[in-house]
Amino acid sequence: MTEELGVALIGTGFMGKAHALAYAQVRPVFGDVPRPRLEILCDVPQDAADRYADQFGFARATDDWRAAVTDPAVDVVSITTPNKFHKEMVCAAAEAGKHIWCEKPLATTLADAETMAEAVKAAGVASMVGYNYLKNPTFMHMKRLVDEGAIGRPIHFRGIVDEDYCADEASPWSWRSLIAEAGLGTLGDLGCHLVSMAHALMGPIETLVSDIETVYPTRPKPGTGEPGPVENEDIASALVRFRSGVPGVLMTSRAAWGAKNRISLEVHGTRGALMFDQERLNELRLYRAGDPATAGFTTILAGPAHPPYGAFVPAPGHQLGFTEMKVVEAAAFLRAAAGGVAEGPDIGEALGIERVIYGIAAVCGHN
Amino acid sequence: MTEELGVALIGTGFMGKAHALAYAQVRPVFGDVPRPRLEILCDVPQDAADRYADQFGFARATDDWRAAVTDPAVDVVSITTPNKFHKEMVCAAAEAGKHIWCEKPLATTLADAETMAEAVKAAGVASMVGYNYLKNPTFMHMKRLVDEGAIGRPIHFRGIVDEDYCADEASPWSWRSLIAEAGLGTLGDLGCHLVSMAHALMGPIETLVSDIETVYPTRPKPGTGEPGPVENEDIASALVRFRSGVPGVLMTSRAAWGAKNRISLEVHGTRGALMFDQERLNELRLYRAGDPATAGFTTILAGPAHPPYGAFVPAPGHQLGFTEMKVVEAAAFLRAAAGGVAEGPDIGEALGIERVIYGIAAVCGHN
Amino acid sequence: MTEELGVALIGTGFMGKAHALAYAQVRPVFGDVPRPRLEILCDVPQDAADRYADQFGFARATDDWRAAVTDPAVDVVSITTPNKFHKEMVCAAAEAGKHIWCEKPLATTLADAETMAEAVKAAGVASMVGYNYLKNPTFMHMKRLVDEGAIGRPIHFRGIVDEDYCADEASPWSWRSLIAEAGLGTLGDLGCHLVSMAHALMGPIETLVSDIETVYPTRPKPGTGEPGPVENEDIASALVRFRSGVPGVLMTSRAAWGAKNRISLEVHGTRGALMFDQERLNELRLYRAGDPATAGFTTILAGPAHPPYGAFVPAPGHQLGFTEMKVVEAAAFLRAAAGGVAEGPDIGEALGIERVIYGIAAVCGHN
Amino acid sequence: MTEELGVALIGTGFMGKAHALAYAQVRPVFGDVPRPRLEILCDVPQDAADRYADQFGFARATDDWRAAVTDPAVDVVSITTPNKFHKEMVCAAAEAGKHIWCEKPLATTLADAETMAEAVKAAGVASMVGYNYLKNPTFMHMKRLVDEGAIGRPIHFRGIVDEDYCADEASPWSWRSLIAEAGLGTLGDLGCHLVSMAHALMGPIETLVSDIETVYPTRPKPGTGEPGPVENEDIASALVRFRSGVPGVLMTSRAAWGAKNRISLEVHGTRGALMFDQERLNELRLYRAGDPATAGFTTILAGPAHPPYGAFVPAPGHQLGFTEMKVVEAAAFLRAAAGGVAEGPDIGEALGIERVIYGIAAVCGHN
Repeated sequence: MTEELGVALIGTGFMGKAHALAYAQVRPVFGDVPRPRLEILCDVPQDAADRYADQFGFARATDDWRAAVTDPAVDVVSITTPNKFHKEMVCAAAEAGKHIWCEKPLATTLADAETMAEAVKAAGVASMVGYNYLKNPTFMHMKRLVDEGAIGRPIHFRGIVDEDYCADEASPWSWRSLIAEAGLGTLGDLGCHLVSMAHALMGPIETLVSDIETVYPTRPKPGTGEPGPVENEDIASALVRFRSGVPGVLMTSRAAWGAKNRISLEVHGTRGALMFDQERLNELRLYRAGDPATAGFTTILAGPAHPPYGAFVPAPGHQLGFTEMKVVEAAAFLRAAAGGVAEGPDIGEALGIERVIYGIAAVCGHN
Repeated sequence: MTEELGVALIGTGFMGKAHALAYAQVRPVFGDVPRPRLEILCDVPQDAADRYADQFGFARATDDWRAAVTDPAVDVVSITTPNKFHKEMVCAAAEAGKHIWCEKPLATTLADAETMAEAVKAAGVASMVGYNYLKNPTFMHMKRLVDEGAIGRPIHFRGIVDEDYCADEASPWSWRSLIAEAGLGTLGDLGCHLVSMAHALMGPIETLVSDIETVYPTRPKPGTGEPGPVENEDIASALVRFRSGVPGVLMTSRAAWGAKNRISLEVHGTRGALMFDQERLNELRLYRAGDPATAGFTTILAGPAHPPYGAFVPAPGHQLGFTEMKVVEAAAFLRAAAGGVAEGPDIGEALGIERVIYGIAAVCGHN
Repeated sequence: MTEELGVALIGTGFMGKAHALAYAQVRPVFGDVPRPRLEILCDVPQDAADRYADQFGFARATDDWRAAVTDPAVDVVSITTPNKFHKEMVCAAAEAGKHIWCEKPLATTLADAETMAEAVKAAGVASMVGYNYLKNPTFMHMKRLVDEGAIGRPIHFRGIVDEDYCADEASPWSWRSLIAEAGLGTLGDLGCHLVSMAHALMGPIETLVSDIETVYPTRPKPGTGEPGPVENEDIASALVRFRSGVPGVLMTSRAAWGAKNRISLEVHGTRGALMFDQERLNELRLYRAGDPATAGFTTILAGPAHPPYGAFVPAPGHQLGFTEMKVVEAAAFLRAAAGGVAEGPDIGEALGIERVIYGIAAVCGHN
Repeated sequence: MTEELGVALIGTGFMGKAHALAYAQVRPVFGDVPRPRLEILCDVPQDAADRYADQFGFARATDDWRAAVTDPAVDVVSITTPNKFHKEMVCAAAEAGKHIWCEKPLATTLADAETMAEAVKAAGVASMVGYNYLKNPTFMHMKRLVDEGAIGRPIHFRGIVDEDYCADEASPWSWRSLIAEAGLGTLGDLGCHLVSMAHALMGPIETLVSDIETVYPTRPKPGTGEPGPVENEDIASALVRFRSGVPGVLMTSRAAWGAKNRISLEVHGTRGALMFDQERLNELRLYRAGDPATAGFTTILAGPAHPPYGAFVPAPGHQLGFTEMKVVEAAAFLRAAAGGVAEGPDIGEALGIERVIYGIAAVCGHN
């Protein structure tokens, strides 16, 4: 595959930079992917767009996202803006026939997410949603081991995704606390990643009961210090059943001091168990039933035996990082955009993931 | 305190031996506890009783538990038989005015447990129920830190208790699979320990929703290989609210390959977090909000700074084991029996713990 | 074996209590060991002896150690006094025909240790030296795996033993800093344990080069605050060759902040590796060469598959502690004293261990 | 800084690709570094050069390294070929006035390394040697904590660097086993990294004693299976003294099954200790003397508080990987090449590092 694809990138924050770094590396890393030609970067104001275009190596800069998504030199669009802008941008890009790499969650309401999925389907463009933890070679190996029956038949799942960015009572109120502005809380930021991984390992979630909690009902407004309302949830938990009938527990908190990128997964099977934590993303712990004198959890260090690790570093144990998952994601996206096999999750699959977090937020036994 | 207390021990299995080892050590370890005078050991048949009496250092042996619990030289009775015998023995011992150290769970039905609690209350005797993990100095330190506000106000609790003794599909059917014989499954064996610890750290549980699962609905009967029914649960999970309003998640499985004595606890607070796992019972992990350049989870190794660790070993990090928690429990029991302060959990408090596991078993959203 | 052995215990400090706890448990735990009859406890002054005799369950108390070691009702003597008293006590006990359980290191000089070994040999009594870490079922399993070739042929050994009891510059001067009073420093307290374990795993050490260091050459004398000299070493390291030709590295420090009972061992073999740390004494880490997709260090949790763990607790993962190693040691000693197989290390073997630490102290390239 | 620097890259193996990935990311990550203009890639044969130039984004390709290093459009040269070619290439590049980024170790003999250092010094060009582990933000934080006195005055150092690429007896003989072809063994591949880190943390090493070992003196030659000689060392250990007088122990093995990129460092100080392992490169363990009830090793997860982590990912705990250390190295190199501050290690400093490994290989007590 030597094809080139013209790229527009909208947004230059955490995820905007992550996309830029992914585009920069994807060809040097993999070789056999379409070359991303960095056409146009969009940010506001224009001088920010100019500065980042220079830094990230884009040919042009604009403060007009509609111009970017309709630019004739553009084939693929990266959308990394705040969630409430996703719907309009995705729909416009789809209408313009561009392939779309959009960050998660799709939108601030389920209805918007559904609209986006329909627009992309109608346009027939390729899409990829930034469930980047699925692209970690260690996680991919975990999934492979589950699928191959290395731990027998799965009988139980547990997953936690925690961070501490809302743990401090003193941190100020912002629009992120409002459902109308930001949508869901920890479920939208973190919980949806957990669902994406649970779906990948165990198949779709079918039923659930849940509980959610807002730890600090108000936060001090900047300047005045007056209490501003916190509408969305800090903590959420759900008891689920997968379509297979297997039970699971999903848990998330954005107020968990000490958790920085904890995504802790357990799959229990009839012949063993697998454990993973994103805070040690290069390690997988595997237990297989056997001689009790020597059985135990084996800590597998990621290496070339766990593709596509070897595309980054040919030596095991040398460690991949967060950004490299975005590179794997970029490769999958570019291949799909060039007409290759779509690995997903595309927007349709992401909609299925995000239905679950709205379900957790809605079906709440205690509130 | 130099008083002596005459001891009867009923049962010589896992817990019977644990009680025997606790009685052997409690005075050498602590000094200031009543001396347990090992009067009479009860087991069946008589020659087993004779053999264990010799091994454990009891003066006499019997195969008649009623004789043991009414023996005039006996002040305190250890009841370590299968759960279905607890009620009759506890009631008889209480009626005879003996102080009672009974293993958990109290009984095979909640009604029996209530009868036991009433009998003990009516008799006015001291009691102790074997929630031994509460007696781990590391756990006691965890509780002290929570109570002192070291992590601020608790906002969330999660707990897992897993073992793998029912994980193997090929392990044979037994009476333990029958509710009428054995009572609850993983909730009775393991889950009640978790509730005891959750109550100690967070206060009483008030409401819950739950899900339970039996992984293998039948198991092969020994000899014939015919399928025998498994009536009680292998896996249970609950979303709870403590009386304080704080949410929690409780999880237990007896079919979790690789878990040997996993009791994994998390308390999240407004200023930090505490983590504990019984499989590393001498370690406590503490996070306190602070300078991000040096903040992190601190692994505290148990030592003399965590009483009563120092009564066993004067040097930190030298490690206590399972049996030593029973020694701490024995000391608390003997002091209470001699009229000292009762630390508990006595049978009344244990009833409160066990009501929760029956609640989890009963209130089940999916079955 | 139903034989009884009369016991004298000299000393009631850390190790004195550890011996007392071991005698209290050894029969209840193992059943088939001679019963220790607790005859006489020796401490000074007499009222301390009286108090501890009561606490530990000894029939009599004395402040005259010679009376204790020559008492006709005494068969075995536990010597747990400061090291400089060991020689005289061991020689007297041997002369009186008593079997001897002596703490390590044997003495404050190599010459004294040699005298002790000769006395015991001449008397023909059984002896045991308190290299208790050899009695940890997890370590015993490590040794068994090495011996059985589970990791192929050993090719390299590394060991660290660290504590932090001398890490604080402000801690006061004591007689323990004087070679004439205390003998070696970290080598005598800690390093000899490491040699005992290295010898058990790898065979005898034949040659070495070393380096030692005293971190604080003086410490403040209590009261006056005047600087008192520290003569013995805080840190020692050695490059060794075992008789087999295999190379090794031995390291020890008593000034290593944060180390409480770190005894970290690595055996590298032609087909795998084994790692152990006493601060997690129930865990053994085993790597065996194999499929790189699933190979890794397996953390084995001690259980009944690792004898004699099961004599203490029938369930895996429930954890043994420091004291329980002394129980295993007591069993081996009592069996040897009753004419059974001597597992050792007896005083002769201990002499071989301790020659190495004197070698490390003497052959010092930098001081 | 908006300056551009023309780049020549020689070699496309593990390190060649790592340099390519670093050049691709360095501007998007940091912004304020000179832009690397990818001029010419050199490999043999020409079609490999062509292919990699396309993959890595270089404008031109050549199979003539002399043409590359003298190309007028080239300002900086990356040298990632086998060690024995370094000297000639570095000297030619220096003579051509190019700035040089050379992989370690510098050469296959100390004399060659000295020649290289002289050539670079004479030419007055900037240089950087690929001691990439120094560029890990976690390690940089470790160094900062040591330098700031967070653990008091350093009193002891220990370091291990192990891999297992020569652990398998069955792996075939190659030219890498010959001193004339490959130079040192594990010391050249791995040990020099350890020295670089020890120097950074503790200052220069002044004296040492050492021991080295070749585990398998021959290996089967490919095809014939005849034994080929292994001349260089698999295992090396040294007791060292830093110029400060502080003692240390350095250890390395390329035959340590299970070690993939183990670089385990300990700095012990008068008020605390620091521990690091490259296999968990985002974690630093810090102990500070304090209240024994809560003191312990704190595991610090790398984040924006540890520059330049935040240039890659703005969220803590999200993890950097191996490649990102090369990006930090590239930034330092490009800044130095553009006349900015040289962080090093340049070739002169690298010579000091590598003198130590030759010292370890030469001063050998047992061979």
